[in-house]
Amino acid sequence: MSRLICAGLGPGDPDLISVRSDRVIRAARHIAYFRKAGRAGQARRIVEGMLAPGVTEHAMEYPVTTELPFDSPDYNRLLSAFYDSWAARLQALVQGGAEVVVLCEGDPFFYGSFMHLYVRLRDQIPVEVIPGIPGMVGCWTATGQPVTWGDDVLTVLMATLPEEELVAHMRRADALAIMKTGRNLPRVRRALAAAGRLGDAWLVERGTMPGQRLARLVEVDAADCPYFAIVLVHGHGRRPVAEAAE
Amino acid sequence: MSRLICAGLGPGDPDLISVRSDRVIRAARHIAYFRKAGRAGQARRIVEGMLAPGVTEHAMEYPVTTELPFDSPDYNRLLSAFYDSWAARLQALVQGGAEVVVLCEGDPFFYGSFMHLYVRLRDQIPVEVIPGIPGMVGCWTATGQPVTWGDDVLTVLMATLPEEELVAHMRRADALAIMKTGRNLPRVRRALAAAGRLGDAWLVERGTMPGQRLARLVEVDAADCPYFAIVLVHGHGRRPVAEAAE
Repeated sequence: MSRLICAGLGPGDPDLISVRSDRVIRAARHIAYFRKAGRAGQARRIVEGMLAPGVTEHAMEYPVTTELPFDSPDYNRLLSAFYDSWAARLQALVQGGAEVVVLCEGDPFFYGSFMHLYVRLRDQIPVEVIPGIPGMVGCWTATGQPVTWGDDVLTVLMATLPEEELVAHMRRADALAIMKTGRNLPRVRRALAAAGRLGDAWLVERGTMPGQRLARLVEVDAADCPYFAIVLVHGHGRRPVAEAAE
Repeated sequence: MSRLICAGLGPGDPDLISVRSDRVIRAARHIAYFRKAGRAGQARRIVEGMLAPGVTEHAMEYPVTTELPFDSPDYNRLLSAFYDSWAARLQALVQGGAEVVVLCEGDPFFYGSFMHLYVRLRDQIPVEVIPGIPGMVGCWTATGQPVTWGDDVLTVLMATLPEEELVAHMRRADALAIMKTGRNLPRVRRALAAAGRLGDAWLVERGTMPGQRLARLVEVDAADCPYFAIVLVHGHGRRPVAEAAE
Protein backbone atom coordinates (compact mmCIF):
# COMPACT_ATOMS: atom_id res chain seq x y z
CA MET A 1 0.00 0.00 0.00
CA SER A 2 1.36 3.41 -0.84
CA ARG A 3 2.00 5.41 2.31
CA LEU A 4 4.57 7.19 4.39
CA ILE A 5 6.13 5.24 7.26
CA CYS A 6 8.26 6.91 9.88
CA ALA A 7 10.59 4.30 11.35
CA GLY A 8 11.92 5.17 14.80
CA LEU A 9 15.56 4.06 14.95
CA GLY A 10 16.16 4.10 18.68
CA PRO A 11 19.29 5.40 20.43
CA GLY A 12 21.89 4.46 17.81
CA ASP A 13 22.80 0.78 18.06
CA PRO A 14 21.11 -0.90 15.04
CA ASP A 15 20.45 -3.91 17.27
CA LEU A 16 18.08 -1.72 19.33
CA ILE A 17 15.78 -0.92 16.39
CA SER A 18 12.36 -2.54 16.81
CA VAL A 19 11.57 -5.71 14.88
CA ARG A 20 8.96 -3.78 12.88
CA SER A 21 11.19 -0.84 11.97
CA ASP A 22 13.99 -3.24 11.06
CA ARG A 23 11.71 -5.15 8.68
CA VAL A 24 10.32 -1.98 7.11
CA ILE A 25 13.79 -0.47 6.60
CA ARG A 26 15.20 -3.63 4.99
CA ALA A 27 12.26 -3.85 2.59
CA ALA A 28 12.20 -0.13 1.68
CA ARG A 29 12.42 1.03 -1.95
CA HIS A 30 12.48 4.72 -0.91
CA ILE A 31 14.09 6.04 2.24
CA ALA A 32 14.33 9.65 3.39
CA TYR A 33 16.31 11.14 6.28
CA PHE A 34 17.31 14.52 7.63
CA ARG A 35 20.92 15.57 7.76
CA LYS A 36 23.13 18.60 7.94
CA ALA A 37 24.40 19.53 4.47
CA GLY A 38 27.71 17.89 3.69
CA ARG A 39 27.40 15.30 6.47
CA ALA A 40 26.56 11.58 6.18
CA GLY A 41 23.82 12.02 8.77
CA GLN A 42 23.36 10.05 11.97
CA ALA A 43 20.08 8.39 10.90
CA ARG A 44 21.64 7.17 7.66
CA ARG A 45 24.69 5.92 9.52
CA ILE A 46 22.57 3.78 11.86
CA VAL A 47 21.03 1.83 8.93
CA GLU A 48 24.34 1.32 7.09
CA GLY A 49 24.40 -2.23 5.72
CA MET A 50 20.64 -2.73 6.16
CA LEU A 51 19.32 -1.20 2.93
CA ALA A 52 18.14 -3.24 -0.04
CA PRO A 53 20.06 -2.95 -3.33
CA GLY A 54 18.55 -0.30 -5.58
CA VAL A 55 16.89 1.69 -2.80
CA THR A 56 16.32 5.35 -3.67
CA GLU A 57 17.69 7.68 -0.99
CA HIS A 58 16.24 11.10 -0.30
CA ALA A 59 18.62 13.14 1.85
CA MET A 60 16.66 16.03 3.36
CA GLU A 61 19.39 18.56 4.08
CA TYR A 62 18.58 21.31 6.57
CA PRO A 63 18.99 24.72 4.94
CA VAL A 64 20.43 26.04 8.21
CA THR A 65 21.46 24.52 11.55
CA THR A 66 23.45 26.73 13.88
CA GLU A 67 24.36 29.57 11.47
CA LEU A 68 21.32 31.67 12.46
CA PRO A 69 19.81 32.19 15.92
CA PHE A 70 16.92 29.80 16.63
CA ASP A 71 14.52 32.64 17.38
CA SER A 72 15.17 34.78 14.29
CA PRO A 73 12.41 35.25 11.69
CA ASP A 74 14.86 34.16 8.96
CA TYR A 75 15.48 30.86 10.70
CA ASN A 76 11.78 30.16 11.03
CA ARG A 77 11.06 31.13 7.43
CA LEU A 78 13.85 28.98 6.00
CA LEU A 79 12.92 25.94 8.07
CA SER A 80 9.26 26.28 7.27
CA ALA A 81 9.90 26.46 3.52
CA PHE A 82 12.22 23.45 3.80
CA TYR A 83 9.55 21.32 5.51
CA ASP A 84 6.88 22.51 3.06
CA SER A 85 9.04 21.55 0.12
CA TRP A 86 9.91 18.07 1.42
CA ALA A 87 6.34 17.41 2.49
CA ALA A 88 5.23 18.17 -1.08
CA ARG A 89 7.90 15.90 -2.57
CA LEU A 90 7.10 12.98 -0.27
CA GLN A 91 3.38 13.45 -0.83
CA ALA A 92 3.90 13.30 -4.60
CA LEU A 93 5.93 10.09 -4.27
CA VAL A 94 3.26 8.43 -2.14
CA GLN A 95 0.44 9.63 -4.38
CA GLY A 96 2.41 8.20 -7.29
CA GLY A 97 2.20 4.77 -5.63
CA ALA A 98 5.40 4.58 -3.59
CA GLU A 99 5.88 3.50 0.00
CA VAL A 100 8.41 5.90 1.53
CA VAL A 101 10.23 5.19 4.80
CA VAL A 102 11.43 8.22 6.76
CA LEU A 103 14.20 7.37 9.22
CA CYS A 104 14.05 9.07 12.59
CA GLU A 105 16.58 8.76 15.41
CA GLY A 106 15.12 7.92 18.82
CA ASP A 107 11.33 8.10 18.94
CA PRO A 108 9.59 10.11 16.19
CA PHE A 109 7.04 11.82 18.49
CA PHE A 110 9.61 12.80 21.13
CA TYR A 111 11.35 15.99 19.91
CA GLY A 112 11.81 14.57 16.40
CA SER A 113 12.10 16.63 13.20
CA PHE A 114 9.70 14.22 11.55
CA MET A 115 6.80 15.95 13.34
CA HIS A 116 7.14 18.90 10.99
CA LEU A 117 6.44 16.60 8.05
CA TYR A 118 3.79 14.72 10.01
CA VAL A 119 1.59 17.74 10.70
CA ARG A 120 1.79 18.73 7.02
CA LEU A 121 0.97 15.24 5.68
CA ARG A 122 -1.26 13.37 8.11
CA ASP A 123 -4.47 14.65 6.52
CA GLN A 124 -3.17 14.24 2.95
CA ILE A 125 -1.80 10.69 2.74
CA PRO A 126 -1.67 7.56 4.91
CA VAL A 127 1.09 7.96 7.52
CA GLU A 128 2.26 5.26 9.94
CA VAL A 129 4.59 6.04 12.84
CA ILE A 130 6.68 3.25 14.40
CA PRO A 131 7.93 4.23 17.86
CA GLY A 132 11.56 3.83 18.89
CA ILE A 133 13.62 3.74 22.07
CA PRO A 134 14.34 7.41 22.87
CA GLY A 135 17.99 8.46 22.93
CA MET A 136 17.79 9.27 26.66
CA VAL A 137 16.80 5.64 27.38
CA GLY A 138 19.95 4.45 25.62
CA CYS A 139 21.92 6.95 27.70
CA TRP A 140 20.57 5.85 31.06
CA THR A 141 21.07 2.20 30.09
CA ALA A 142 24.70 3.12 29.38
CA THR A 143 25.14 4.44 32.92
CA GLY A 144 24.29 0.99 34.33
CA GLN A 145 21.92 2.55 36.89
CA PRO A 146 18.13 2.62 36.98
CA VAL A 147 16.89 6.16 36.32
CA THR A 148 13.58 6.03 38.22
CA TRP A 149 12.20 3.92 41.08
CA GLY A 150 8.98 3.89 43.06
CA ASP A 151 7.35 7.31 42.92
CA ASP A 152 10.28 9.25 41.44
CA VAL A 153 9.42 12.20 39.22
CA LEU A 154 11.38 12.43 35.95
CA THR A 155 11.63 15.75 34.13
CA VAL A 156 13.06 16.12 30.63
CA LEU A 157 14.56 19.55 29.96
CA MET A 158 16.15 21.33 27.03
CA ALA A 159 19.38 23.08 27.97
CA THR A 160 18.16 26.05 25.90
CA LEU A 161 15.59 27.01 28.59
CA PRO A 162 16.17 30.09 30.77
CA GLU A 163 18.45 29.35 33.70
CA GLU A 164 15.90 30.16 36.42
CA GLU A 165 13.42 27.78 34.83
CA LEU A 166 16.03 25.02 34.69
CA VAL A 167 16.77 25.56 38.37
CA ALA A 168 13.10 25.41 39.37
CA HIS A 169 12.60 22.09 37.56
CA MET A 170 15.88 20.66 38.82
CA ARG A 171 14.86 21.38 42.43
CA ARG A 172 11.46 19.79 42.07
CA ALA A 173 12.14 16.57 40.10
CA ASP A 174 13.91 13.45 41.39
CA ALA A 175 15.41 12.34 38.07
CA LEU A 176 16.50 14.59 35.21
CA ALA A 177 17.36 14.20 31.53
CA ILE A 178 18.75 17.34 29.91
CA MET A 179 19.15 17.50 26.14
CA LYS A 180 20.51 20.04 23.60
CA THR A 181 23.49 20.62 25.84
CA GLY A 182 26.48 21.66 23.69
CA ARG A 183 27.14 25.37 24.00
CA ASN A 184 24.52 25.57 26.77
CA LEU A 185 26.56 23.34 29.08
CA PRO A 186 27.82 26.22 31.27
CA ARG A 187 24.20 27.25 31.96
CA VAL A 188 23.21 23.66 32.76
CA ARG A 189 26.13 23.34 35.13
CA ARG A 190 25.24 26.58 36.95
CA ALA A 191 21.59 25.55 37.20
CA LEU A 192 22.45 22.09 38.55
CA ALA A 193 24.78 23.66 41.11
CA ALA A 194 22.07 26.14 42.18
CA ALA A 195 19.63 23.24 42.57
CA GLY A 196 22.15 21.19 44.56
CA ARG A 197 22.27 18.43 41.93
CA LEU A 198 25.61 18.98 40.15
CA GLY A 199 27.47 16.26 42.07
CA ASP A 200 24.94 13.64 40.91
CA ALA A 201 24.99 14.54 37.21
CA TRP A 202 26.41 12.38 34.42
CA LEU A 203 27.23 13.38 30.87
CA VAL A 204 26.51 10.62 28.34
CA GLU A 205 27.65 10.93 24.76
CA ARG A 206 26.77 8.52 21.98
CA GLY A 207 24.85 6.21 24.36
CA THR A 208 24.73 2.60 22.98
CA MET A 209 26.94 3.60 19.99
CA PRO A 210 30.60 3.01 19.18
CA GLY A 211 32.58 5.73 20.96
CA GLN A 212 30.11 5.86 23.85
CA ARG A 213 31.45 8.14 26.59
CA LEU A 214 30.30 8.43 30.14
CA ALA A 215 31.61 10.92 32.68
CA ARG A 216 30.62 12.72 35.84
CA LEU A 217 29.64 16.20 34.72
CA VAL A 218 31.87 17.88 37.31
CA GLU A 219 34.84 16.18 35.66
CA VAL A 220 34.04 17.29 32.09
CA ASP A 221 35.75 20.25 30.48
CA ALA A 222 33.06 22.82 29.65
CA ALA A 223 34.54 23.32 26.19
CA ASP A 224 34.18 19.63 25.43
CA CYS A 225 30.49 18.93 24.96
CA PRO A 226 28.89 17.86 21.70
CA TYR A 227 25.32 18.94 20.93
CA PHE A 228 23.86 15.48 21.30
CA ALA A 229 25.30 14.63 24.69
CA ILE A 230 22.68 14.17 27.41
CA VAL A 231 23.02 15.12 31.06
CA LEU A 232 21.37 12.66 33.46
CA VAL A 233 20.59 12.73 37.16
CA HIS A 234 19.23 9.45 38.53
CA GLY A 235 16.35 9.20 40.98
CA HIS A 236 16.86 7.14 44.11
CA GLY A 237 13.34 5.95 44.77
CA ARG A 238 10.57 7.54 46.73
CA ARG A 239 8.08 5.47 48.64
CA PRO A 240 4.53 5.82 47.41
CA VAL A 241 2.38 7.87 49.80
CA ALA A 242 -0.53 6.39 51.74
CA GLU A 243 -3.81 6.44 49.91
CA ALA A 244 -6.00 7.19 52.91
CA ALA A 245 -7.26 10.42 51.36
CA GLU A 246 -9.03 8.65 48.50
CA MET B 1 28.43 -17.28 28.46
CA SER B 2 26.51 -17.77 31.68
CA ARG B 3 24.86 -14.52 32.71
CA LEU B 4 21.60 -12.79 33.46
CA ILE B 5 20.06 -10.78 30.63
CA CYS B 6 17.15 -8.47 31.22
CA ALA B 7 15.26 -8.09 27.94
CA GLY B 8 13.14 -4.92 27.71
CA LEU B 9 9.89 -5.85 25.94
CA GLY B 10 8.62 -2.42 24.99
CA PRO B 11 5.02 -1.22 25.24
CA GLY B 12 3.23 -4.50 24.48
CA ASP B 13 3.17 -5.17 20.74
CA PRO B 14 5.73 -7.99 20.16
CA ASP B 15 6.65 -6.28 16.89
CA LEU B 16 8.01 -3.35 18.93
CA ILE B 17 10.57 -5.47 20.81
CA SER B 18 14.13 -4.60 19.80
CA VAL B 19 15.98 -6.86 17.39
CA ARG B 20 18.40 -7.79 20.18
CA SER B 21 15.74 -8.62 22.79
CA ASP B 22 13.80 -10.58 20.18
CA ARG B 23 16.87 -12.68 19.35
CA VAL B 24 17.74 -13.27 23.01
CA ILE B 25 14.17 -14.27 23.92
CA ARG B 26 13.85 -16.72 21.01
CA ALA B 27 17.17 -18.38 21.93
CA ALA B 28 16.53 -18.53 25.68
CA ARG B 29 16.71 -21.82 27.60
CA HIS B 30 15.60 -20.15 30.86
CA ILE B 31 13.18 -17.26 31.08
CA ALA B 32 11.90 -15.53 34.21
CA TYR B 33 9.14 -12.95 34.59
CA PHE B 34 7.14 -11.23 37.31
CA ARG B 35 3.43 -11.75 37.60
CA LYS B 36 0.56 -11.51 40.04
CA ALA B 37 -0.24 -14.95 41.52
CA GLY B 38 -2.88 -16.74 39.51
CA ARG B 39 -2.48 -14.52 36.43
CA ALA B 40 -0.76 -15.31 33.12
CA GLY B 41 1.28 -12.13 33.45
CA GLN B 42 1.60 -9.34 30.90
CA ALA B 43 5.31 -9.92 30.17
CA ARG B 44 4.71 -13.61 29.49
CA ARG B 45 1.74 -12.78 27.29
CA ILE B 46 3.84 -10.47 25.09
CA VAL B 47 6.30 -13.27 24.21
CA GLU B 48 3.59 -15.89 23.55
CA GLY B 49 4.61 -17.88 20.46
CA MET B 50 8.24 -16.70 20.59
CA LEU B 51 9.74 -19.18 23.06
CA ALA B 52 11.90 -22.13 22.04
CA PRO B 53 10.60 -25.65 22.72
CA GLY B 54 11.84 -26.95 26.05
CA VAL B 55 12.44 -23.53 27.61
CA THR B 56 12.30 -23.54 31.41
CA GLU B 57 9.96 -20.86 32.72
CA HIS B 58 10.42 -19.19 36.11
CA ALA B 59 7.27 -17.31 37.10
CA MET B 60 8.19 -14.88 39.87
CA GLU B 61 4.87 -14.33 41.61
CA TYR B 62 4.53 -11.24 43.78
CA PRO B 63 3.64 -12.25 47.35
CA VAL B 64 1.37 -9.21 47.55
CA THR B 65 0.16 -6.53 45.14
CA THR B 66 -2.73 -4.37 46.32
CA GLU B 67 -3.80 -6.34 49.40
CA LEU B 68 -1.58 -4.30 51.74
CA PRO B 69 -0.88 -0.53 51.70
CA PHE B 70 2.31 0.35 49.79
CA ASP B 71 3.79 2.15 52.78
CA SER B 72 3.22 -0.53 55.41
CA PRO B 73 6.21 -2.30 57.01
CA ASP B 74 4.64 -5.66 56.15
CA TYR B 75 4.49 -4.78 52.47
CA ASN B 76 8.14 -3.74 52.43
CA ARG B 77 9.27 -6.81 54.33
CA LEU B 78 7.36 -9.23 52.12
CA LEU B 79 8.57 -7.64 48.89
CA SER B 80 12.14 -7.49 50.09
CA ALA B 81 12.18 -11.17 51.05
CA PHE B 82 10.62 -12.01 47.68
CA TYR B 83 13.35 -10.17 45.73
CA ASP B 84 16.07 -11.67 47.96
CA SER B 85 14.78 -15.16 47.32
CA TRP B 86 14.53 -14.79 43.54
CA ALA B 87 17.90 -13.07 43.32
CA ALA B 88 19.42 -16.07 45.09
CA ARG B 89 17.68 -18.55 42.77
CA LEU B 90 18.70 -16.72 39.60
CA GLN B 91 22.24 -16.31 40.87
CA ALA B 92 22.47 -20.05 41.53
CA LEU B 93 21.23 -20.81 38.00
CA VAL B 94 23.77 -18.48 36.41
CA GLN B 95 26.60 -19.74 38.60
CA GLY B 96 25.57 -23.26 37.56
CA GLY B 97 26.28 -22.27 33.94
CA ALA B 98 22.90 -21.09 32.68
CA GLU B 99 22.01 -17.99 30.72
CA VAL B 100 18.77 -16.65 32.19
CA VAL B 101 16.59 -14.09 30.39
CA VAL B 102 14.39 -11.91 32.60
CA LEU B 103 11.48 -10.37 30.69
CA CYS B 104 10.61 -6.79 31.55
CA GLU B 105 7.75 -4.75 30.12
CA GLY B 106 8.71 -1.32 28.79
CA ASP B 107 12.27 -0.29 29.65
CA PRO B 108 13.98 -2.14 32.54
CA PHE B 109 15.58 0.97 34.10
CA PHE B 110 12.42 3.09 33.94
CA TYR B 111 10.26 2.13 36.95
CA GLY B 112 10.78 -1.60 36.31
CA SER B 113 10.59 -4.32 38.99
CA PHE B 114 13.76 -5.81 37.52
CA MET B 115 15.79 -3.11 39.28
CA HIS B 116 15.21 -4.86 42.60
CA LEU B 117 16.97 -7.95 41.22
CA TYR B 118 19.56 -5.82 39.46
CA VAL B 119 20.83 -4.09 42.59
CA ARG B 120 21.09 -7.45 44.35
CA LEU B 121 22.93 -9.21 41.51
CA ARG B 122 25.05 -6.73 39.56
CA ASP B 123 28.10 -7.26 41.75
CA GLN B 124 27.62 -11.04 41.97
CA ILE B 125 27.19 -12.25 38.37
CA PRO B 126 27.39 -10.78 34.84
CA VAL B 127 24.18 -8.86 34.10
CA GLU B 128 23.24 -7.34 30.73
CA VAL B 129 20.31 -4.95 30.36
CA ILE B 130 18.67 -4.47 26.95
CA PRO B 131 16.61 -1.27 26.84
CA GLY B 132 13.05 -1.20 25.53
CA ILE B 133 10.50 1.33 24.32
CA PRO B 134 8.82 2.62 27.51
CA GLY B 135 5.09 2.05 27.82
CA MET B 136 4.41 5.79 27.76
CA VAL B 137 6.05 6.02 24.30
CA GLY B 138 3.64 3.38 22.99
CA CYS B 139 0.79 5.40 24.53
CA TRP B 140 1.73 8.69 22.95
CA THR B 141 2.26 6.98 19.61
CA ALA B 142 -1.29 5.61 19.97
CA THR B 143 -2.66 9.16 20.31
CA GLY B 144 -1.32 10.03 16.85
CA GLN B 145 0.11 13.31 18.17
CA PRO B 146 3.69 14.30 18.92
CA VAL B 147 4.19 14.63 22.67
CA THR B 148 7.03 17.18 22.72
CA TRP B 149 8.30 19.84 20.30
CA GLY B 150 11.02 22.45 20.39
CA ASP B 151 11.81 23.34 23.99
CA ASP B 152 8.85 21.63 25.64
CA VAL B 153 9.40 20.27 29.15
CA LEU B 154 8.08 16.74 29.77
CA THR B 155 7.40 15.58 33.32
CA VAL B 156 6.61 11.98 34.23
CA LEU B 157 4.51 11.65 37.38
CA MET B 158 3.12 8.83 39.47
CA ALA B 159 -0.54 9.32 40.33
CA THR B 160 0.31 8.20 43.87
CA LEU B 161 2.05 11.53 44.63
CA PRO B 162 0.39 14.07 46.95
CA GLU B 163 -2.17 16.19 45.14
CA GLU B 164 -0.43 19.54 45.75
CA GLU B 165 2.78 18.14 44.31
CA LEU B 166 0.96 16.87 41.22
CA VAL B 167 -0.56 20.32 40.72
CA ALA B 168 2.80 22.09 41.02
CA HIS B 169 4.38 19.84 38.37
CA MET B 170 1.34 20.00 36.10
CA ARG B 171 1.48 23.81 36.14
CA ARG B 172 5.18 23.96 35.33
CA ALA B 173 5.62 21.31 32.60
CA ASP B 174 4.42 21.53 29.00
CA ALA B 175 3.85 17.81 28.43
CA LEU B 176 2.83 15.26 31.06
CA ALA B 177 2.77 11.49 31.39
CA ILE B 178 1.03 10.22 34.52
CA MET B 179 1.31 6.56 35.48
CA LYS B 180 -0.11 4.32 38.24
CA THR B 181 -3.51 5.87 37.71
CA GLY B 182 -6.21 3.30 38.66
CA ARG B 183 -7.76 4.17 42.00
CA ASN B 184 -5.82 7.46 42.02
CA LEU B 185 -7.66 8.76 38.98
CA PRO B 186 -9.95 11.11 40.98
CA ARG B 187 -6.86 12.80 42.47
CA VAL B 188 -5.22 13.09 39.04
CA ARG B 189 -8.38 14.61 37.64
CA ARG B 190 -8.63 17.19 40.45
CA ALA B 191 -4.96 18.08 40.10
CA LEU B 192 -5.23 18.50 36.32
CA ALA B 193 -8.29 20.71 36.78
CA ALA B 194 -6.48 22.83 39.40
CA ALA B 195 -3.54 23.22 36.98
CA GLY B 196 -5.86 24.13 34.08
CA ARG B 197 -4.84 21.06 32.06
CA LEU B 198 -7.82 18.71 32.39
CA GLY B 199 -9.33 19.59 29.01
CA ASP B 200 -6.09 18.57 27.25
CA ALA B 201 -5.65 15.20 28.97
CA TRP B 202 -5.98 11.80 27.32
CA LEU B 203 -6.33 8.41 28.94
CA VAL B 204 -4.56 5.64 27.05
CA GLU B 205 -5.05 2.03 27.98
CA ARG B 206 -3.15 -0.89 26.47
CA GLY B 207 -1.21 1.38 24.07
CA THR B 208 -0.02 -0.60 20.96
CA MET B 209 -1.80 -3.75 22.23
CA PRO B 210 -5.02 -5.50 21.18
CA GLY B 211 -7.86 -3.75 22.98
CA GLN B 212 -6.07 -0.38 22.89
CA ARG B 213 -8.37 2.34 24.17
CA LEU B 214 -7.99 6.05 23.83
CA ALA B 215 -10.29 8.65 25.37
CA ARG B 216 -10.35 12.24 26.52
CA LEU B 217 -10.00 12.06 30.29
CA VAL B 218 -13.01 14.33 30.87
CA GLU B 219 -15.15 11.75 29.08
CA VAL B 220 -13.97 8.75 31.13
CA ASP B 221 -16.01 7.36 34.00
CA ALA B 222 -13.89 7.68 37.17
CA ALA B 223 -14.78 4.13 38.16
CA ASP B 224 -13.43 2.80 34.88
CA CYS B 225 -9.64 3.07 35.01
CA PRO B 226 -7.27 0.11 35.05
CA TYR B 227 -3.98 0.41 36.93
CA PHE B 228 -1.86 0.44 33.81
CA ALA B 229 -3.64 3.20 31.94
CA ILE B 230 -1.53 6.31 31.35
CA VAL B 231 -2.75 9.89 31.33
CA LEU B 232 -1.06 12.09 28.73
CA VAL B 233 -1.01 15.82 28.07
CA HIS B 234 0.77 16.82 24.86
CA GLY B 235 3.14 19.77 24.58
CA HIS B 236 2.54 22.24 21.78
CA GLY B 237 6.04 23.45 21.15
CA ARG B 238 7.98 26.28 22.73
CA ARG B 239 10.47 28.27 20.74
CA PRO B 240 14.02 27.97 22.00
CA VAL B 241 15.17 31.13 23.82
CA ALA B 242 17.91 33.38 22.50
CA GLU B 243 21.37 32.45 23.63
CA ALA B 244 22.66 35.98 24.06
CA ALA B 245 23.37 35.42 27.75
CA GLU B 246 26.02 32.77 27.06
